[in-house]
Amino acid sequence: MGFSEEKLLEQLAATRKASTRLAMASADSKWQALQALAALLETNSSLILAENKLDVDQLALDNPMRDRLLLTSERIQDLAKSVRAVALLPDPSGQVLLHKTLANGLDLQKIAVPLGVVGVIYESRPNVTIDVAALCLRSGNAAVLRGGTDAWHTNSILVSLIHQALLVAKLPIELVLLMPTDRELVQTLLTAVSFVDVIIPRGSNALIQKVRRESLIPTIETGAGVCHTYVAESADVDMAVNIVVNAKVTRPSVCNSLDTILVHRAQASAFLKAVAGPMKSWNVAIFADPEAFAYLEKENYPFLHVAQVADFGREYLDYACSVKVVADLAEALGHIQTYSSRHSEAIVSTDASEAEFFLQAVDAAAVYWNASTRFTDGGVFDLGAEIGISTQKLHARGPFALEKLVTEKWILKGQGQVR
Amino acid sequence: MGFSEEKLLEQLAATRKASTRLAMASADSKWQALQALAALLETNSSLILAENKLDVDQLALDNPMRDRLLLTSERIQDLAKSVRAVALLPDPSGQVLLHKTLANGLDLQKIAVPLGVVGVIYESRPNVTIDVAALCLRSGNAAVLRGGTDAWHTNSILVSLIHQALLVAKLPIELVLLMPTDRELVQTLLTAVSFVDVIIPRGSNALIQKVRRESLIPTIETGAGVCHTYVAESADVDMAVNIVVNAKVTRPSVCNSLDTILVHRAQASAFLKAVAGPMKSWNVAIFADPEAFAYLEKENYPFLHVAQVADFGREYLDYACSVKVVADLAEALGHIQTYSSRHSEAIVSTDASEAEFFLQAVDAAAVYWNASTRFTDGGVFDLGAEIGISTQKLHARGPFALEKLVTEKWILKGQGQVR
Repeated sequence: MGFSEEKLLEQLAATRKASTRLAMASADSKWQALQALAALLETNSSLILAENKLDVDQLALDNPMRDRLLLTSERIQDLAKSVRAVALLPDPSGQVLLHKTLANGLDLQKIAVPLGVVGVIYESRPNVTIDVAALCLRSGNAAVLRGGTDAWHTNSILVSLIHQALLVAKLPIELVLLMPTDRELVQTLLTAVSFVDVIIPRGSNALIQKVRRESLIPTIETGAGVCHTYVAESADVDMAVNIVVNAKVTRPSVCNSLDTILVHRAQASAFLKAVAGPMKSWNVAIFADPEAFAYLEKENYPFLHVAQVADFGREYLDYACSVKVVADLAEALGHIQTYSSRHSEAIVSTDASEAEFFLQAVDAAAVYWNASTRFTDGGVFDLGAEIGISTQKLHARGPFALEKLVTEKWILKGQGQVR
Repeated sequence: MGFSEEKLLEQLAATRKASTRLAMASADSKWQALQALAALLETNSSLILAENKLDVDQLALDNPMRDRLLLTSERIQDLAKSVRAVALLPDPSGQVLLHKTLANGLDLQKIAVPLGVVGVIYESRPNVTIDVAALCLRSGNAAVLRGGTDAWHTNSILVSLIHQALLVAKLPIELVLLMPTDRELVQTLLTAVSFVDVIIPRGSNALIQKVRRESLIPTIETGAGVCHTYVAESADVDMAVNIVVNAKVTRPSVCNSLDTILVHRAQASAFLKAVAGPMKSWNVAIFADPEAFAYLEKENYPFLHVAQVADFGREYLDYACSVKVVADLAEALGHIQTYSSRHSEAIVSTDASEAEFFLQAVDAAAVYWNASTRFTDGGVFDLGAEIGISTQKLHARGPFALEKLVTEKWILKGQGQVR
């Protein structure tokens, strides 16, 4: 192909310029663009399916990426529905966050304004293309999309529909830029400090580490979830089993699924006996510390391994987890402090003061008492579609959705005040 | 000296551990520590002055750093006063930002919690040591301080007083760590992702660039201010002169001082004639574009240079600025978009709709209409002492003060809910 760095920088400059126009655009034009996009997705369904087939057919039949990449008529319907849902969310930009008159007579306002240009680097899920474009447009931001090579045809047709929708609303098409997938251009994006305001990596740990190392642009890390559930001495065993099994098996490939069970010694025998049946029926591999291993061996648990050090702090993303028996809450908290990725952590307990202590002490984006970690999600938290789950502390933490696609601006009006 | 990387990592681990204890500490103990610190600063004034003298005496008499490093009895009084002021500010942590019950019965709260461990890399101003420690303590954060080599004796005595204050309040002294100044240890700090939550570089552009390149920890950039004031066609000339001169000369070494004057062609003659006198009396060097140069030459302006390209977008930090004549608001906005560091920008105009357009269109932390950019400051904005002025968009923008030393945490309480 050959797509030069210079060409990309020109495009990024055009996107920056378009973003300043969008910040001044009417709410009506953004609404119109989103409605047009939803309609275009529906009317161009067969075209999208044909382009998507080109991508999917390139993958081997047993490649697990196929399903993540695959679009169906129903999934396209869902994309359109999601765009309409985003259009209905309140625009976070323009809100007056503070308004006061200072002693010297200056009128001071703090208002929410769009971030500007949002860069997202992701893998093969085509819904990310539509979700990110819709969320950015709704909040007045331009978007630079760097999707996976595998999804090139799909992303190209989706972005060309986004461009058509922008034209309908008389907005510049440069507002949404689909980058070519040449590897070396990622570096160009990560260092384009004049044109891009934030970089969001969505995907593998390797991608996140690369962005961390190489980006000169502030980033929001979304990703790795090493999630623990602690079954306390006072836990209701049935509830604990129900929560733990749900957290592990309903969708093991996502970041809020369970990775490690910590169980209080006094509960270990009863709990592990009770959890073995359902876990077995889901073929869940268990990496157990010696004490838990002994209990599970007694149950003839078929997918049992002795846990190595690396099996704690590991994100399984599969039908597998680790188990450790602990002496008390302090040991559980210590283990979580050491191995957690600060995403979602849970305690199952009937002791309210113990649970409150856990909720306060654990340093994570979301902490649960008597519920499954699987709830950590922008939609579940009533925030609408999300860009990802932030595991860092700056700007956004936990579900990173529309409300956080803004920054602040201080506006001061005077009558000649000097200092 | 020889202070190993391992030793530092041990200390950072201890600071992380202490920070989790502080997050659970009572408001009373934090209050007690701050009051003790203020008192200790006052009672140990002569000891501090003696240690400070060791640092100051190492600098040549004509070194401009001397004044920034120098402490006097009065300045120590000010430090104590500032600590007491911070103690009176409301603690931003613990605030309930959102509380609702989800449809599935889960009780959802979003609360503000301390960031954890805040690392600050700064140069020779000893007040930063006290301000950062006080702000972090007030908001429940631990602080890692990496001050300048020049200020080692001063910082050491100040931090030992901070440690005494922590002991008085029965808080762990590891909460405030003064790092040795070995150059290679900065790299250790910037990559200690398990122990430090945010890095704030305060100082030269070279330092900020180094942190940008090398930090694996999220950073908040505070620093460079390339600030413009646009004198519009409708400007009141007297007001414009007053604002521009104030923005330039009251403290040229700080980031919110004026760097470039943009003046509408129709105002250029009258404005430049009027501003020449006061600027001359302050010995301000002016780097002028050809048109402005001609006007100022007519006034026999003594410190006049033809502006080179690099004189725009330059942060002068001295009695010097650049001037450019523009055709209209659009040209002024284009110039600002290209050269601004997005810190503070101003328009002087009697045309309200033009001014409103400017305030909306300019992408900067603080935008002013008919006032001096010198007001961009946490104290002036009623936020209390600040850690710096953030010129980035994530997390904090503009004055970065106590209110932003927190992140969020989602707390969910259930009765066994699963997804």
